[in-house]
Amino acid sequence: MAHDYASGEVESWPTGFRAYTAHGGIRDSGDDISVVVSDRPAVSAVMFTKSHFAGPAVVLSRKHAAGRRLRAVVTLAQNANVATGRAGHDNAAEVTARVARLAGVAADEVLIGSTGVIGRPLPMDAIRAHFEASTGDFTAAPLDVARAMMTTDTRPKTAERQVGAARITGVAKGVGMLEPDMATMLAYVFTDAAVAPDDLDRALRKAVEPSFNSLSVDTDTSTSDTVAVLANGAAGPVDQDAFAAALADLCLDLCLQLARDGEGATKLLTVTVAGAADDAQAKRVAKSVVNSPLVKTAVHGADPNWGRVAMALGKNTDESGIDPDRIAVRFGDVEVYPSEPGGDTLDRLTELMRRDEVSIGIDLGYGGGEATVYGCDLSAGYVRINADYTS
Amino acid sequence: MAHDYASGEVESWPTGFRAYTAHGGIRDSGDDISVVVSDRPAVSAVMFTKSHFAGPAVVLSRKHAAGRRLRAVVTLAQNANVATGRAGHDNAAEVTARVARLAGVAADEVLIGSTGVIGRPLPMDAIRAHFEASTGDFTAAPLDVARAMMTTDTRPKTAERQVGAARITGVAKGVGMLEPDMATMLAYVFTDAAVAPDDLDRALRKAVEPSFNSLSVDTDTSTSDTVAVLANGAAGPVDQDAFAAALADLCLDLCLQLARDGEGATKLLTVTVAGAADDAQAKRVAKSVVNSPLVKTAVHGADPNWGRVAMALGKNTDESGIDPDRIAVRFGDVEVYPSEPGGDTLDRLTELMRRDEVSIGIDLGYGGGEATVYGCDLSAGYVRINADYTS
Repeated sequence: MAHDYASGEVESWPTGFRAYTAHGGIRDSGDDISVVVSDRPAVSAVMFTKSHFAGPAVVLSRKHAAGRRLRAVVTLAQNANVATGRAGHDNAAEVTARVARLAGVAADEVLIGSTGVIGRPLPMDAIRAHFEASTGDFTAAPLDVARAMMTTDTRPKTAERQVGAARITGVAKGVGMLEPDMATMLAYVFTDAAVAPDDLDRALRKAVEPSFNSLSVDTDTSTSDTVAVLANGAAGPVDQDAFAAALADLCLDLCLQLARDGEGATKLLTVTVAGAADDAQAKRVAKSVVNSPLVKTAVHGADPNWGRVAMALGKNTDESGIDPDRIAVRFGDVEVYPSEPGGDTLDRLTELMRRDEVSIGIDLGYGGGEATVYGCDLSAGYVRINADYTS
Repeated sequence: MAHDYASGEVESWPTGFRAYTAHGGIRDSGDDISVVVSDRPAVSAVMFTKSHFAGPAVVLSRKHAAGRRLRAVVTLAQNANVATGRAGHDNAAEVTARVARLAGVAADEVLIGSTGVIGRPLPMDAIRAHFEASTGDFTAAPLDVARAMMTTDTRPKTAERQVGAARITGVAKGVGMLEPDMATMLAYVFTDAAVAPDDLDRALRKAVEPSFNSLSVDTDTSTSDTVAVLANGAAGPVDQDAFAAALADLCLDLCLQLARDGEGATKLLTVTVAGAADDAQAKRVAKSVVNSPLVKTAVHGADPNWGRVAMALGKNTDESGIDPDRIAVRFGDVEVYPSEPGGDTLDRLTELMRRDEVSIGIDLGYGGGEATVYGCDLSAGYVRINADYTS
């Protein structure tokens, strides 16, 4: 099945939200600061990276998010402000305070996100000059915000869903250093539905597990991962189940846009593992396949070298129950193991692997656990992008 | 410190060993079958891959190795004979029997190794024809054997050490699908020292942990990993400690030759972690750095993007004790964290990273655990080699 991940270029916000983007001098050109704000109080739910090296933006945002009353989100692009010492924390706090003033909200209602190079101080002189001069023209569309959030992304990522009278709108960025652990790089969701904070939190956690937490571009977990949802209630209450389902669907949509735009990626790679001891084991095994450099390069080259999937399954030496005699592997609808594929089947396999979405299905054959994870191929482009990123 | 890993091209065997290499029709051209045999009984110690998809060669060799009396080692190059069903087991047994006849030893004294493409049957017609016609000219040097074992290797790997009157000679292959788990792809060591089986086993296990088990090219564990040592006693007894030390040194030598020739690699990458809770934690954390695609690409591009090491440390979310406030990171002798490197330091760092060996030192700052691991950079060459391997 092909995924309908490109749900369009979203041009407007749910009722009560507006946004601002600008060039603040963090990168050479193009907008690098974006702010989304609700014109009325909102409730919020947020999940952050579990990295030990979480940056000042995450540390400060964790405090602000605890109140579940976030109203604004600011993003700095091109500099993660991570591993920047005491000054890094001061700078994150100063940017947050300036944004609060510009947006007309309290500082502790602001979530701050920052991604890009690690270990370099923010260019605070330029940022300060920008905020001193800014008149705060909040007329940017979701697509503008998504674009201002990009670092090595090649495409802005936006998505929207309708639930009753309410809308859910999401923006995201992230193409490398991307194996989210409880959250993705940066994904922000805004809705005018009226949702209680507990319900919002529950819906977010449920939406993140099969989407952002099932995504890996390169096994490298960012120090800045954040996914947040703000609900301002302007459209009134909605059916809670319908809302949770729409939120989950939107998160998967954004997640697939991230996978597809993985650094250097030319293909979306989907790996489903069934028949595992439990869902958690299925996910660990599926991740070992979607992250295998040899599987990723074979997918890149449309090389029907399915034996590499066997290798990737075999290397899960910490997992019990994996037994070649019980396993079945297919690419799309083509079975490759244990039925040894002959000439015709290899031709069909090659044809399948030339498509821009490759799906690998694995049945471990002994339990009821199942999981699907998302990734991309590994290309020379990934190396090119990352061998020369700071310079 | 630069590693003295290229200990030369070894031209002769310890007393009592001789070898045979030939083209058996597994690949288009060049020798692809090699046999090393002792002209007298020998004792042996072997360690194998832990992969769940271990191939017929490993399954059969495990049985033969149990007797600790191996006298011969045969290697097939270019086809791993893995995931090949019942026929794969029959073929491994037939090759082993034919080699035993050629070498004049018992079939259960033969170790068989096989690496290359997974999931394709061995070309048994060609292999049979070869053995029917062969006169068994056992005049090959270690360098010839190492060359006949190569798949995507660009250089044969050999090493030797002297212990008293005895010699230790090793050959190895392996450049991709290379994160050995209790053994490396294929590394064979031959010695004319007289060593008791228990001592040999102990010395091998001790030698493998800080060498092959500390090596990773791409996190992909082979289905065929085997490391074996055969001792035929022709040179008489040696000092046991000196033997163990020489064996460990030789294993590290071969290991560094493997790392340096990692698929597409241009640089040897060494990561040392100190100050961990214990050696095992130090090794897990060091592996997360040496395997990080973003660290590997930065090393490839000589990009002084040391922040990626902070990221890689941070993503060890299952490890307790990792705290940015206690960590110190250096590249060679240049400290990069927590002391923020300024312009001069960044220049020195760039210069360091241009060398063909890059060493990263990390102090977690709270315990006595320490480990060093070895890897290589990630280049577009790795993608090129692996995107089009079977075709």
